[in-house]
Amino acid sequence: MNVDTLAARYMAVRKHTLELAGPLSEEDCCVQSMPDASPIKWHMAHTTWFFETFILETHEPGFRPFHPLFRVLFNSYYNGVGDKHPRPQRGMLTRPPLREIVAYRHNVDERIAALLSEQTLTAELLALVETGLQHEQQHQELMLTDVKHMLSLNPLYPAYSHASFGPAPVAAPPSWVEHEAVLACIGHGGDGFCFDNETPRHRQFIESYAIASRLVNNREYLRFVEEGGYANPTWWLSEGWEWVQANRLGHPLYWRKDGASWKEFTLYGLHPLDPNRPLTHVSYFEADAYARWAGARLPSEAEWEHAVSSASSFGTHGLHPISSAREQAHGLCELFGACWQWTLSSYAPYPGYHPAKGAIGEYNGKFMSNQYVLRGSSCATPSGHARMTYRNFFPSAARWQFTGIRLARSL
Amino acid sequence: MNVDTLAARYMAVRKHTLELAGPLSEEDCCVQSMPDASPIKWHMAHTTWFFETFILETHEPGFRPFHPLFRVLFNSYYNGVGDKHPRPQRGMLTRPPLREIVAYRHNVDERIAALLSEQTLTAELLALVETGLQHEQQHQELMLTDVKHMLSLNPLYPAYSHASFGPAPVAAPPSWVEHEAVLACIGHGGDGFCFDNETPRHRQFIESYAIASRLVNNREYLRFVEEGGYANPTWWLSEGWEWVQANRLGHPLYWRKDGASWKEFTLYGLHPLDPNRPLTHVSYFEADAYARWAGARLPSEAEWEHAVSSASSFGTHGLHPISSAREQAHGLCELFGACWQWTLSSYAPYPGYHPAKGAIGEYNGKFMSNQYVLRGSSCATPSGHARMTYRNFFPSAARWQFTGIRLARSL
Amino acid sequence: MNVDTLAARYMAVRKHTLELAGPLSEEDCCVQSMPDASPIKWHMAHTTWFFETFILETHEPGFRPFHPLFRVLFNSYYNGVGDKHPRPQRGMLTRPPLREIVAYRHNVDERIAALLSEQTLTAELLALVETGLQHEQQHQELMLTDVKHMLSLNPLYPAYSHASFGPAPVAAPPSWVEHEAVLACIGHGGDGFCFDNETPRHRQFIESYAIASRLVNNREYLRFVEEGGYANPTWWLSEGWEWVQANRLGHPLYWRKDGASWKEFTLYGLHPLDPNRPLTHVSYFEADAYARWAGARLPSEAEWEHAVSSASSFGTHGLHPISSAREQAHGLCELFGACWQWTLSSYAPYPGYHPAKGAIGEYNGKFMSNQYVLRGSSCATPSGHARMTYRNFFPSAARWQFTGIRLARSL
Amino acid sequence: MNVDTLAARYMAVRKHTLELAGPLSEEDCCVQSMPDASPIKWHMAHTTWFFETFILETHEPGFRPFHPLFRVLFNSYYNGVGDKHPRPQRGMLTRPPLREIVAYRHNVDERIAALLSEQTLTAELLALVETGLQHEQQHQELMLTDVKHMLSLNPLYPAYSHASFGPAPVAAPPSWVEHEAVLACIGHGGDGFCFDNETPRHRQFIESYAIASRLVNNREYLRFVEEGGYANPTWWLSEGWEWVQANRLGHPLYWRKDGASWKEFTLYGLHPLDPNRPLTHVSYFEADAYARWAGARLPSEAEWEHAVSSASSFGTHGLHPISSAREQAHGLCELFGACWQWTLSSYAPYPGYHPAKGAIGEYNGKFMSNQYVLRGSSCATPSGHARMTYRNFFPSAARWQFTGIRLARSL
Repeated sequence: MNVDTLAARYMAVRKHTLELAGPLSEEDCCVQSMPDASPIKWHMAHTTWFFETFILETHEPGFRPFHPLFRVLFNSYYNGVGDKHPRPQRGMLTRPPLREIVAYRHNVDERIAALLSEQTLTAELLALVETGLQHEQQHQELMLTDVKHMLSLNPLYPAYSHASFGPAPVAAPPSWVEHEAVLACIGHGGDGFCFDNETPRHRQFIESYAIASRLVNNREYLRFVEEGGYANPTWWLSEGWEWVQANRLGHPLYWRKDGASWKEFTLYGLHPLDPNRPLTHVSYFEADAYARWAGARLPSEAEWEHAVSSASSFGTHGLHPISSAREQAHGLCELFGACWQWTLSSYAPYPGYHPAKGAIGEYNGKFMSNQYVLRGSSCATPSGHARMTYRNFFPSAARWQFTGIRLARSL
Repeated sequence: MNVDTLAARYMAVRKHTLELAGPLSEEDCCVQSMPDASPIKWHMAHTTWFFETFILETHEPGFRPFHPLFRVLFNSYYNGVGDKHPRPQRGMLTRPPLREIVAYRHNVDERIAALLSEQTLTAELLALVETGLQHEQQHQELMLTDVKHMLSLNPLYPAYSHASFGPAPVAAPPSWVEHEAVLACIGHGGDGFCFDNETPRHRQFIESYAIASRLVNNREYLRFVEEGGYANPTWWLSEGWEWVQANRLGHPLYWRKDGASWKEFTLYGLHPLDPNRPLTHVSYFEADAYARWAGARLPSEAEWEHAVSSASSFGTHGLHPISSAREQAHGLCELFGACWQWTLSSYAPYPGYHPAKGAIGEYNGKFMSNQYVLRGSSCATPSGHARMTYRNFFPSAARWQFTGIRLARSL
Repeated sequence: MNVDTLAARYMAVRKHTLELAGPLSEEDCCVQSMPDASPIKWHMAHTTWFFETFILETHEPGFRPFHPLFRVLFNSYYNGVGDKHPRPQRGMLTRPPLREIVAYRHNVDERIAALLSEQTLTAELLALVETGLQHEQQHQELMLTDVKHMLSLNPLYPAYSHASFGPAPVAAPPSWVEHEAVLACIGHGGDGFCFDNETPRHRQFIESYAIASRLVNNREYLRFVEEGGYANPTWWLSEGWEWVQANRLGHPLYWRKDGASWKEFTLYGLHPLDPNRPLTHVSYFEADAYARWAGARLPSEAEWEHAVSSASSFGTHGLHPISSAREQAHGLCELFGACWQWTLSSYAPYPGYHPAKGAIGEYNGKFMSNQYVLRGSSCATPSGHARMTYRNFFPSAARWQFTGIRLARSL
Repeated sequence: MNVDTLAARYMAVRKHTLELAGPLSEEDCCVQSMPDASPIKWHMAHTTWFFETFILETHEPGFRPFHPLFRVLFNSYYNGVGDKHPRPQRGMLTRPPLREIVAYRHNVDERIAALLSEQTLTAELLALVETGLQHEQQHQELMLTDVKHMLSLNPLYPAYSHASFGPAPVAAPPSWVEHEAVLACIGHGGDGFCFDNETPRHRQFIESYAIASRLVNNREYLRFVEEGGYANPTWWLSEGWEWVQANRLGHPLYWRKDGASWKEFTLYGLHPLDPNRPLTHVSYFEADAYARWAGARLPSEAEWEHAVSSASSFGTHGLHPISSAREQAHGLCELFGACWQWTLSSYAPYPGYHPAKGAIGEYNGKFMSNQYVLRGSSCATPSGHARMTYRNFFPSAARWQFTGIRLARSL
């Protein structure tokens, strides 16, 4: 990507963050609903901090920070950068006010634009800018899932968007796409951007398997719920069963029982549960239990990536997953743009993996324990961010992302 | 108090709440810093809910609620009224927005004004209005202490007020005011307003005692800190010592060590610790430990009330306690308008106490366990709210109120 | 008490501790069922440590400890003595074995006997021995309540005693014993032994009141249970209601629902609930809630002591409270030897109270916060330990002692 | 294995359990030191329960349980069998006494012997007996690690064994054993016993790697400790760093700083840290951090198994790991009989894995989340229990097993 294209892309990505905050009030942007989630304002500041800290601080002549304390306030988890404001207290930052964060964004944008207009930019610097944009896109998705969680705790069930939320197309039954055993190449090997955790490209042997053509939908999952799936330890991992009992769970995160019928809280507000939409907001434990109940299992990430092989269509941005019969790769639909898909693969380094040098090396590698890989992308993933080799990851009890289920089985 | 005076007082008290929120942004008004504290916006709504629920709902012809869900959202702890939004989640209510709460206030104010302009008001109704105003004044004090706690968690240490914060007058050493043993009458017996917990007026026998003429100040308490008071179990109640160790405490809530010197966070921002100001923001445990270290004890509430006997001056409203040599009663100064004063008296019903009938009877009596009585009033207590017989109460570890220490001893 | 009598009493009290452990195995004596309870073996060692540390260490010529580490292992809470083995880990001490603790007891007994056979004993030393014996008697009661709690967690419901457990006599309805307002003298003033918290004797004014002639029994309390007492916040202190809900409580500690009927776990094993026995094993919160439901209240400790005035009969030792119509003082029965009786009085120092000097001063005073006073004595209180002025105290949620309810009301 | 051999083996394995309890008192056998550990007595009963429930109950004519409640008391985690006594309360079971558990063992042993002496035993039944013996051997190892944990909490540091504990041989520096990339066959494929989680044998592609010839020893790990390894987030996984900070850790579980020198608590008591012994009792987090500090990584379980390829020597039973230069397979020593070796592989099903039918299918599969695989065996592993394909597994913070570190790296 040349510099001019990158500068334009920089402006577009940065603008989109402000657009996402558009429907929200100052109050909406300030509150933190749980330690795992961050306030919208914090996302807006932290993504800016990333550019200021990793690019301007080392590349801008005569660098002076926008505000000396922001280095601490908006550091997420980079020990190499120094102190951090405690994560569970991000919601206490009523000051700086939202308008000052917006000013911070504009200030850094101008300085980055000035930097990008220079003649002698190194490839390393351009790569850092691209990393910053990819980082910001990740936070754009989190902005939607974090604000959804916060709004869901409000008995008024406020809608983020007032656009209409109609029924999805009826989904045909899924089919099984079968593959022979194969020594596959996995991981990112091309020229475009990828995160370090997608490398190096390497070989994995995959025994023969089948993978479902589409995601599990609400109609299917409702059967599991209504047949007592959450009350029967047979279906659950031991740890999952403890989690269900300790939290007295009986349904996905945003489902609400309303008399005899079910509703679902969405970014469009509270609506009757649409049986044809892909199931979303389930944990790894729920995905695994459902798969066992259905006589199947989750795919490994190598199976998933091998089954996709190549993809050209990455879905469209939206605020809730919708069913789609459009094939995105090799007989598979709903790979991208609906729900992240839990795999049975623990998040671990690929053979030969090395994190980047310095603080930016803390981006991925240090989270490689007790998390599970999700593949694909969701309705909330920004355009241009999805990739066949992308490795998303969350702990096994996390449910506030747009997470869903694609089944697989061994042959 | 006649109706016209009451109507004017109603408008003045209600207006003062809005004035207190004046220096705060929408964000400041929304966030909850701990379960014990409430957002400013919630205080503004809850005090309005009190008038709507306890007065309009039963006295307004054709009553219709401003918003049907507000009955739940802004109920604090009245089980008799029905469901409640969970206390620790008050900070999640980014909606309704602040402007809607202000509209709610105006709406209820107009309807109360209309009610008060009628001809046939019962004494019971007028008493309810007065109770609502006293209730609102209590929340006015909490607004200041709650927002102070929230701002204290922000590394920017934002000031609520930018007024100047100069040094206080040098305080003379305290003297002991002595009293013979006496069968005293305690509790409220006159005509004016009081809460039910101040009644009935009754007899208590008090053995001879002495009480300090003024509050403990920062200079005196600093000696306790610097002589290792927080590291020596000798001075502490067993429970207090566990509290100190579990929380690794070494100083009052808002003191901050800055190199070799001490600072104090105030509503005026972070300032050097003023040795002459009354010590404030200490728990019962700290007050008790300091008293033991000083060879004294805390007064009982009966001693305190008997020592005051009658008071005509109740201090002035402000944002931080200031030392004062002005005698408020019988050789005692700093009784009112500086800090609430911990007594060694557990909060318990007076002999013959009966709570009011109905949900409003939940106001005081149900909190009479494992709390300690504080007497006097603080700089944050609204004008006209303090009383000689007033019984404030907090758990023994609470420190976010303007709480201080007046010593006593047995003779 | 002369020295010979004291020596004989020493041997009798010490022997009784071993008798209490008689029905228990080594395993029974080792396990700790909760942080509030201690293993039987630990009680046996700690009471011996008390004599070794507070008497032998300072009075025995050429003192050498039985085992140097026991000073730490068996210190309960005396900071003045030095380090302590953490309370929740007392049950980890499988070593020293029980037989070594018994040897420790015999060794200290011989050395105390030698000391008591000397000519020149000071009054202070004799008083210390008496304090040690009273201390041991307190632990004798705890041995029974602690082992009962441990056995109750075993699904086999083992009996501590296999003696027969027959029905109690039918109890007549209670009557109200009325008293005029009075300036009463409260506290210990005579010659015999008392703990420092019973002094000094002082004056308290008591408004007119009535007190129930006997304890609340299981039949009466069962009505409260079956009429939904645990499901109605009306009856409960706010803190008590939170406690009921957080722990999902619906009955006293050792009641068990068995189909349509109720059973009670006792030291005699699991038996049908006897409607005529005094209710026991309730917390302050339950006592207070029941009293409110019954249209009454708990007595203050001054009322209780004044109502008793003088008592000559202190009940008999046993393993479960039994109903009794035998008057123990001024129209009152079941004062002593059945259940400790919750009062509404917070545990606080009497006016002029001073704890003893040195580590032994930590015996009582440092616990004077957030606990409630209980009066009387229980079936588990050793003979000769009860006293009219005795002040027992426990936190408001404690239920594993033999605690019951005597009602009172204001006139 | 024919029936007679199996019967003899049954008696030998069962006898060994009693031998392991030999040095322990009744008290030692009863106490539970943490929820993850079980009392010795419980292990003795549960292993017996396994034979009674899975073999006698279905195969013994006229089966009657030894004690009807034992089915609940000694069920570990088999939901298919019914209720379970809560795991954290296993230490409350002072009854049944140890001697009754021993009687239970003898009773079941006689009945199993009778069953094995019959003519018509199915292969399925013989396999179940073998599973029961393997299960008992697993618990034999836990008996040692659980009692070690319990004894370590006793300030007397009691020794399980009084045998001498001399210094280990000086260990030569480790060498790297290198392997080319290979498509390897992994998992159990032969005739002998294995657990279901070792199957099916399947293919895995392994990129080229090197593996250390021996385990990390105390001298090497001490450098990590003394160079501040526990204070530097650089070396730690994010989750590991939180764990270190939350628990304020600075060394392996049983190391104790004594002035300037280090000691280690062993089953032989507290001894000076032996620099030549293999490091043991570290968590996955510590193993991973040390490997990163050392410029290496942990092996995958496939690498470990491929590197071993075939092994004939499985070390010897003991009570603490000892260094050894004896090659056990292909240039590798200390594979078996010293410490279990953390791998970077999350515990997951092999491709095509299916758990057994019925309750016994709960043995392994339901634990396949958020645990890491350990390979090899430890000094506490009973003779005849180790296997090249054996997959042990524990959560990433577990340290009370004999766990150690073998390094690897990618080539």
